[in-house]
Amino acid sequence: MKKSVFASPQDAEAAFYEALERGDIDAMMEVWADDEEVVCVHPGGARLAGYEAVLKSWAQIFASGQRLRVQVSHQVVLSGMMLTVHSVHENIAVQGPGREFATRPSASVVATNAYLRTANGWRMILHHASPAPAAVQESPRVQPSGPKVLH
Amino acid sequence: MKKSVFASPQDAEAAFYEALERGDIDAMMEVWADDEEVVCVHPGGARLAGYEAVLKSWAQIFASGQRLRVQVSHQVVLSGMMLTVHSVHENIAVQGPGREFATRPSASVVATNAYLRTANGWRMILHHASPAPAAVQESPRVQPSGPKVLH
Repeated sequence: MKKSVFASPQDAEAAFYEALERGDIDAMMEVWADDEEVVCVHPGGARLAGYEAVLKSWAQIFASGQRLRVQVSHQVVLSGMMLTVHSVHENIAVQGPGREFATRPSASVVATNAYLRTANGWRMILHHASPAPAAVQESPRVQPSGPKVLH
Repeated sequence: MKKSVFASPQDAEAAFYEALERGDIDAMMEVWADDEEVVCVHPGGARLAGYEAVLKSWAQIFASGQRLRVQVSHQVVLSGMMLTVHSVHENIAVQGPGREFATRPSASVVATNAYLRTANGWRMILHHASPAPAAVQESPRVQPSGPKVLH
């Protein structure tokens, strides 16, 4: 049973990124809906489906000792009554054991986060993150077509 | 004004992939909501926001003459009253000018598609596609941690 109740998708999102920065698996899984249908795609990774698979992946990531600073920006909110989707940029600085955080963001990721309104508040049901080609940009220009850009 | 009315998110999704395979820009943009808030991420590309940016990107992709065959599988449906999210695997075979379709899928992509219920039927409001690390898989194993897997 979840202890936390998130009154809005924004509250759930704030808790998600806080848990990510802290490397706190319990706090992270408080955010996720306890459901077989939840979906998580880590940058460059395979799609994971189901609560247990998502839990294992975060536990393994946090166990590495790597810590992240995540600046979230350029949020686009697509709201429904029961389901809300956020599209965000994540600027991520990585701190490994013995290393300081870089002074500038070291990676740019685009993420789609979906939240479901449950009887017990809002929960994350989908996180799809993928590497962005450069630091934060919001350009109408498309990428040059090439073998990696299939559509 | 859109001519087509999609009675369900499934109908909109079918039309999206049909337009993608046919390289038909008009059919593609029939599927999308005419909204400044729509979001599209092509595999490996930057996030595009707004109808015009999304339109330009598809027009450029289709103008290349490259044609795709897309097999959609492993669909997970996250349904709300007004907003529905689909997570799918896309197995993509590419046909360039003068080339036949490969007999086996040549690329594996994971996609998140979001659809909004409008006064005029269901429309796509988000498409986030990113390369998957291998052919269709639904594995609970996480990817080996490394510099590219930030979270």
